Amino acid sequence: MTAAPSPAAPAKPRLVMKFGGTSVRDIERIRNAAARVKREADRGYDVAVIVSAMAGETNKLVDLVREAASAPGERAAFYDAREYDAVVASGEQVTAGLMALALQQIGVPARSWQGWQAPLITNAAHGAARIESIDTAALDRKFGEGLHAVIAGFQGVGPDGRIATLGRGGSDTSAVAFAAALGAERCDIYTDVDGVYTTDPRMVENARKLDRISYEEMLELASLGAKVLQTRSVELAMRYKVRLQVLSSFDDLPGTLVCDEGEIMESKVVSGVAFQRDEAKVTLLGVADRPGVAAAIFGPLAEAGVNVDMIVQNISEDGLTDMTFSTAEDDVDRACAVLEAAKGGIGWRAIVADRGVAKVSIVGIGMRSHAGVAQRMFAALAAEGVNIKVITTSEIKVSVLIDRKYLELAVRALHDAFELHAV
Amino acid sequence: MTAAPSPAAPAKPRLVMKFGGTSVRDIERIRNAAARVKREADRGYDVAVIVSAMAGETNKLVDLVREAASAPGERAAFYDAREYDAVVASGEQVTAGLMALALQQIGVPARSWQGWQAPLITNAAHGAARIESIDTAALDRKFGEGLHAVIAGFQGVGPDGRIATLGRGGSDTSAVAFAAALGAERCDIYTDVDGVYTTDPRMVENARKLDRISYEEMLELASLGAKVLQTRSVELAMRYKVRLQVLSSFDDLPGTLVCDEGEIMESKVVSGVAFQRDEAKVTLLGVADRPGVAAAIFGPLAEAGVNVDMIVQNISEDGLTDMTFSTAEDDVDRACAVLEAAKGGIGWRAIVADRGVAKVSIVGIGMRSHAGVAQRMFAALAAEGVNIKVITTSEIKVSVLIDRKYLELAVRALHDAFELHAV
Repeated sequence: MTAAPSPAAPAKPRLVMKFGGTSVRDIERIRNAAARVKREADRGYDVAVIVSAMAGETNKLVDLVREAASAPGERAAFYDAREYDAVVASGEQVTAGLMALALQQIGVPARSWQGWQAPLITNAAHGAARIESIDTAALDRKFGEGLHAVIAGFQGVGPDGRIATLGRGGSDTSAVAFAAALGAERCDIYTDVDGVYTTDPRMVENARKLDRISYEEMLELASLGAKVLQTRSVELAMRYKVRLQVLSSFDDLPGTLVCDEGEIMESKVVSGVAFQRDEAKVTLLGVADRPGVAAAIFGPLAEAGVNVDMIVQNISEDGLTDMTFSTAEDDVDRACAVLEAAKGGIGWRAIVADRGVAKVSIVGIGMRSHAGVAQRMFAALAAEGVNIKVITTSEIKVSVLIDRKYLELAVRALHDAFELHAV
Repeated sequence: MTAAPSPAAPAKPRLVMKFGGTSVRDIERIRNAAARVKREADRGYDVAVIVSAMAGETNKLVDLVREAASAPGERAAFYDAREYDAVVASGEQVTAGLMALALQQIGVPARSWQGWQAPLITNAAHGAARIESIDTAALDRKFGEGLHAVIAGFQGVGPDGRIATLGRGGSDTSAVAFAAALGAERCDIYTDVDGVYTTDPRMVENARKLDRISYEEMLELASLGAKVLQTRSVELAMRYKVRLQVLSSFDDLPGTLVCDEGEIMESKVVSGVAFQRDEAKVTLLGVADRPGVAAAIFGPLAEAGVNVDMIVQNISEDGLTDMTFSTAEDDVDRACAVLEAAKGGIGWRAIVADRGVAKVSIVGIGMRSHAGVAQRMFAALAAEGVNIKVITTSEIKVSVLIDRKYLELAVRALHDAFELHAV
C-alpha cells in the first residue's frame, strides 16, 4: 500500500474506530457502538468508523456462494472469486448503512462509504486482495463539511472495477489502512475482548491486561494464537506507525495500546506467555546431510498446504542428520503421507510422529537486552518436572514443545516465574 | 430515460430474462432459473438476466433500516434515503453474484453487474429514483467476449455517485430499461403466475390465459389490481416498444406477451375483467358549484396521501352539486377527517361514506371500435339484480362501483357475458 499524506494538515484531529461482527450483531449493539462514536465526535474528532458484517452474516453469505457454485448435492472445488467478493462484501455494506442511520438518529452527521466509493484500491487477487492505495480526497472533503464517515470494512475495488475483498478478518486491515491514509491520531479496534493479556485469562487466573505492547510483541502473540488482531493489520500498523488500541465495546475500561516500542517506557523482560494446544512433532530420522535436503523436505509439504511452524535440525553424524518440525495436529497425517511419497527425492530411514504435544512461548522485547531469559524459562519448567522436546528462539521469543498434558502447568509456571501478574 | 441504440447491430440477438423474488428464493430455485437461461443461451441469444432479491430479503433489510433510524422503542418518522438505498440494494447484489455462479456451474459463461457497474444512471430521488440513462458500452463489450450478463435489478447510481433504488417492484422496470437499451428481442418476466388472465382464476373457474395483450390494456389491468407487472415497467415498455412476456418460472407453459396492439390480430371487444374488493365511496352533498371547488376538495386529500380513484360530479341544481369519489376502504376515515378540517374552504352540507363497495371493470382495446359495450355490461349486471352505484368510463375501460357482496356474482356474470372463457 502507498499512502500519500493529505496535502494540508486536517482541520480537526481524526480517529478511526473499528467495530467487529459481535459489536454490530443487532441494532441494539449498533446503537451502542454509535453512542461511542458520538462521544469521540463530541470530543472534537473527525471519526472514520470501519464496520464488519453483522455477526454470522459473512458465514451465511459464504455458504450461499459455495452452494450456488456447486452441482446439487456436491461441493464445488472452484468458484469465481469475483462473484464471491460481490456477494460477501454486501455484509459490510449493510452494516455501514445501518451505522450511518444510527449515528444520524442521535444527531451525529454521518454517511456511509463502500469500498469502491472511498475508494480503497486493491490488487487483482479477488478473495484475498492486498491494498494498493486509498484516495482520501472525497473523504477529506466530506470531513470538511462536518460529515463523519462510516466505511464498509474488508473491501475495496480491484483494477477491473469490481469489488475485491481482503480475506477473512480483513476489516482490521481496512481500519489500519484508513488510519494511515487519513493521518488518524489512533485506530481503536472495538471487539469482544477488552485488550491484550499477559496470557489467556481462562487459563491463568491472575493474567493481567497490558496497557501497552509493541508491534513486534503483538505480532509474535498474534501468530502464536492470541487471536485479537489480524496479523496483517499489525504489520501494516507497524509499517505506517499507526497507534492501535484494542478495547471492548461492552464496557468502558481502557484497552491495550499497540504502539512503537519508543512509546513504552520501561518494558518488562517478558510481556506475555503464548501457547498453542494442538500441535504435533514429526521427526525424519537418518536424513542425508547434503545441500538442498531441507528444500526437498519442505517444498512438497508447502505444496500440499501443510503449515510447518518450528524446524530443528540436529547435529549431523556420519553424514546423516535428524530433521524435526512441528505442525498442527490436524495436518500430521497429510504431512506423513507427503513425506512417504517424496521419500525417493529426500532419502530417510524412518518417520516418527508425536501427536500429543503443545507449544509454549515467552515473548518480550526486553529479552534483547537481557541475557539468561531462556535459561530462566528452562529452569522454571524443570522445577515443575516438564520435559522440553524442542526449542526454538528468536530475538524476542523463546518457544518450546512439551507434552500436551503439561500445558496448563507450564503456562502458569512461566507466568509466575516472570512475575507477569505484577505491574 | 434516454436510450441511444447501440452503434452497430449486435452480433447475436439479445434477450432479457427477469426473475422475481420467489423465483430466486433459494439456491435450488436459482439453479432452476439458471437452467432456463442456459436454454436461451443455447438457442443463440446473448442473455441479460435481471434478478430481484431473494424472497423476504428486501423486507428484512427495510426492517433493519427502520429500526436503525429509530430511537429504541420508537418508530422513525424520517430516514436518510441514501442509506436506505445502500442497505436495501445489497439484496439484489447477492442474488446477482449467486446467479452468475450458478450459471458458471452449468457451463454458461457469465458475470454479475451491479447497478453502478453497468452503469444504470438515475436521478437524485433516492428511494424512488427514475432512470436517466443506461450506458451499455461495457455490457456490449462483454457480450462480445461471450459473457452473459447477470444484472442486479432495482438499482442504479445517482448523480452523487451513490447507490439509488427505483422503488419497490423496481426490478421489472430495470428489466424493461435494459431490454430497451440493449435492443433486446424480448423481455421475459419470470414470476409466480404463468401469465395474464381474463380475470382472477381463483374467482372464475374458466378464466383463460391470454396469449397476447396490448400495453394499454395491461396498464388498465395492472392499475386495477391485476398485480403481475409494475405499472411503471409497462409504461416504459410501451414507450420503447419493448415486447414483454410474463411467464411462470415453475412450469414450461407459454406465457402472455404484452405488445403493441399492431401485433394482436383480431382482438376481442373485451379482454378482461378486473376488480378491486376493498373500496369505499364518499359523497359530499350540497357542494357549491363554483370554479375551483374540485381543487379545494382534492388538494387537501392529495396532501394527506389519500389515493382517490374514481371521481363523479352530479348535475348541479340551485347552484349546489354532489361530489362522489372512491378510495381504498383503509383511507376512508382519513379522507373524512381531512374533508371535515377543510369544510370552511370547500363548503358542503353533509358527508356520506359507503364502506362496503367494490369496483369492477371491463377492459379492452376493441371497445374503441364497438358501440354498446357499456350497455352490454349494465344489462348483464341488471340481469343478476346487481345495482350500480357509480360509473366511469375511459376509451378502453368501463368501471362500476357495486355493493361488495355482489362482487363475485358480478365478475362471473361479466366474464360470461363477454364470452371470455372462449378463445
